[in-house]
Amino acid sequence: MSLVITTYDWVPDFAIGYVRDLRPRWACEEAGLHYAIDTTSVREKTPAHFARQPFGQVPILRDGDLSVFESGAILLYLGERSDALLPREPGPRAETQQWLIASLNTLEPVVMALALARIFDKDAQAAERALPRLQERLRQLEGVMAGRDFIAAGRFTIADIMLTEVLRIAASLGVLADYPALTAYVARMMARPAFQRAHAAQIAHFAKAA
Amino acid sequence: MSLVITTYDWVPDFAIGYVRDLRPRWACEEAGLHYAIDTTSVREKTPAHFARQPFGQVPILRDGDLSVFESGAILLYLGERSDALLPREPGPRAETQQWLIASLNTLEPVVMALALARIFDKDAQAAERALPRLQERLRQLEGVMAGRDFIAAGRFTIADIMLTEVLRIAASLGVLADYPALTAYVARMMARPAFQRAHAAQIAHFAKAA
Ligand SMILES: N[C@@H](CCC(=O)N[C@@H](CS)C(=O)NCC(=O)O)C(=O)O
Ligand SMILES: N[C@@H](CCC(=O)N[C@@H](CS)C(=O)NCC(=O)O)C(=O)O
Repeated sequence: MSLVITTYDWVPDFAIGYVRDLRPRWACEEAGLHYAIDTTSVREKTPAHFARQPFGQVPILRDGDLSVFESGAILLYLGERSDALLPREPGPRAETQQWLIASLNTLEPVVMALALARIFDKDAQAAERALPRLQERLRQLEGVMAGRDFIAAGRFTIADIMLTEVLRIAASLGVLADYPALTAYVARMMARPAFQRAHAAQIAHFAKAA
Repeated sequence: MSLVITTYDWVPDFAIGYVRDLRPRWACEEAGLHYAIDTTSVREKTPAHFARQPFGQVPILRDGDLSVFESGAILLYLGERSDALLPREPGPRAETQQWLIASLNTLEPVVMALALARIFDKDAQAAERALPRLQERLRQLEGVMAGRDFIAAGRFTIADIMLTEVLRIAASLGVLADYPALTAYVARMMARPAFQRAHAAQIAHFAKAA
């Protein structure tokens, strides 16, 4: 009956605190859902891992016989388990799903394009093109966030988990400081006890692994 | 009571047949949901448009008082309207959401990175980096698709709409031909009468606009 989140056995130092298992961890902490952690080797990805996650990534959630990958789909699934995560009324529910998907499909790609250009590809020209694309989205989002406590439905939802996690990557690239409403939002979300517990648990997990 | 899909009043020729309003159009056609089309100016984006879609994009769905953007969220919303689109049982439902999200967050970003590098940025070096990243994902997906008729739940779902639409962009870049299971899958999906109706309606819409 209990939930199991699969993550890696090890990640490089810069990734600790940002591994996407934080998304389901945080959701479980908010909803009071008990979960266990299982690991899979990152250095020698096994056929068993690819059988559950064809792209060889984490996180994966197991719930009894069910195995689900994609952090976004895992949050939607956990949302069905607890209305602390996903409202039941059609309007607030659609708004939550809208911002979950916007985080994954409109924001994360422009954030990751900058991270890729700067950190992995070390291509200054590509980074120069990626930065204004990200800044345009952040400027638009800043206008939405001004005057809101939460991104959707007037209350905490899985959309806040996804948006915060994507904006934390932007913050780690040094591009969030120009957006005061977004900066304050991320600080508010990170101050939540459930985030703190999930974050500390991930750090402890990878410290133990090292 | 009726659904209204907002799209642009005009798009450049190369985009016709690929505008993301095709996703909700196709879903409505599969489910037998009646819908109307509304337009917004692409050349002079209005404040009213930004108020409904803060990134100034399309599609947007209206259902009575409700307005939802993000094609992925619109498909999830329409999925609640018809189980022809989204299964009700938890396992098949989670698998459908998993592949909808994988299409949006794992596949679309690597497809769009190649499109951006080649078509918009005309950066050969960036395109050379983007191609193998896309090919790796397509190779992994080819393994999943071999022997399946549909991507999730053993039947047609909104995950097929999303995956087909993302793979059609890959096909338009000439990179799908090396993957026979994916090529056959896209051909099968495009042969569905509901796809054909939605596709023809989009083409007619932009032909009339021109
Ligand atoms: N779209 C996936 C992305 C997962 C992802 O990027 N996971 C990283 C860890 S945070 C990973 O497994 N990286 C190793 C790899 O891509 O080989 C999701 O949201 O679950
Ligand atoms: N993540 C959005 C992307 C929508 C999108 O890219 N729409 C295009 C048309 S297909 C658009 O509005 N482009 C104009 C622009 O980005 O300014 C979704 O899936 O709805």
